[in-house]
Amino acid sequence: MWQLLQFPLCPFSRKVRLLLGEKGVAYEPVRESPWMRRDEFMDLNPAGQVPVMVDTERGVTLIDSSVICEFFEETVDKAAMLNGTAVDRAEIRRLTLWFDTQFFSEITAPLLQERMLKRLVYKQSPDGQVLRAAMKAAVGHLDYIDYLLDHRTWIGGATMSLADLAAAAQISIADYLGGIDWKSHEQAKRWYIGMKSRPSFRPLLSERMEGIPPPADYEKLDH
Amino acid sequence: MWQLLQFPLCPFSRKVRLLLGEKGVAYEPVRESPWMRRDEFMDLNPAGQVPVMVDTERGVTLIDSSVICEFFEETVDKAAMLNGTAVDRAEIRRLTLWFDTQFFSEITAPLLQERMLKRLVYKQSPDGQVLRAAMKAAVGHLDYIDYLLDHRTWIGGATMSLADLAAAAQISIADYLGGIDWKSHEQAKRWYIGMKSRPSFRPLLSERMEGIPPPADYEKLDH
Repeated sequence: MWQLLQFPLCPFSRKVRLLLGEKGVAYEPVRESPWMRRDEFMDLNPAGQVPVMVDTERGVTLIDSSVICEFFEETVDKAAMLNGTAVDRAEIRRLTLWFDTQFFSEITAPLLQERMLKRLVYKQSPDGQVLRAAMKAAVGHLDYIDYLLDHRTWIGGATMSLADLAAAAQISIADYLGGIDWKSHEQAKRWYIGMKSRPSFRPLLSERMEGIPPPADYEKLDH
Repeated sequence: MWQLLQFPLCPFSRKVRLLLGEKGVAYEPVRESPWMRRDEFMDLNPAGQVPVMVDTERGVTLIDSSVICEFFEETVDKAAMLNGTAVDRAEIRRLTLWFDTQFFSEITAPLLQERMLKRLVYKQSPDGQVLRAAMKAAVGHLDYIDYLLDHRTWIGGATMSLADLAAAAQISIADYLGGIDWKSHEQAKRWYIGMKSRPSFRPLLSERMEGIPPPADYEKLDH
């Protein structure tokens, strides 16, 4: 069986887990804290990042969430997440990257740094200015999601796609870390509640990072 | 015809141009300096990055080098650059990302900041410490290329692939900016001379960024 090396608040591992859940691929989650830079893990992935997937029986290692998603999209027909023409697929990949890089660098990464790493690793208090900048950036990204959903049914086009999984994965971590205010974002909120309600999403919402409790509404399906 | 928005020292635009050259896709390069954050360009790509490809006749816009490469790999059969099994393709994509992200962030990005942006935009002198750190990181990456070429014919496996184009694109910019010392890297050097000799590479080597001349050996095929 596949093993998935990850930790509960990794947005890229969540994107992969949503894809595996939709496609019905069985896997065993294995806890890896990449900031510990464990020797065996650094040998496995010199980039030092999760997720990594390993199939020890077949001797296969898959590194990086976008590589893993393309692999399962190519090898498992069920629940195709890169649908349509080559142009449609380019738009899905563009928006997947948008959330993987822009949303991550402006919102998820600073929230993880201030609210997770500073507590668990550096034993420091979070920097309020960085937190406020991340929350302000989140408003801009929710505006963009509202705009996209004014023009199409799902984030990436007419059908649910990898772009929805990437967006929901980043938002769910930002939401866990108190960075999302849904006020005046009814469209985005309705879409996110739809994503939260999916069977692929439920197991992620019940997980906790030790010492870091989520807000009261985090797991609720009407918030 | 396709237009490619780019500037001469953009490693990601170079990766795309190598792919288009190998595949024989015609395009018109259009100069775009993303650091100017031109309004029309920011409307086209909110991420504010090149390369962007536009086909005005068909009304198609392709954003991000990895999206563009996947698009032409899907639509043009000639010179396939993601060959082999799904596992082979995962390894090619992993190494492409390795050069796009690790090599770029440790070497190309600081060299562009210190030797291009500081001269053209900020009117500052380069920081010697940053330059030395980038050149030291380059030695580590050349070691890794030597290691890969000890085990396989090309960077990503048995055939030339997108991983070779990504690696050569990053290295060519680092080389232009004086960041590469080939000493004790015979394997990597032989591979790079092979890449430089390809017809797809020749037009890139003759281009210059205004006010920033490359080292004397940059364009030579025996260096």
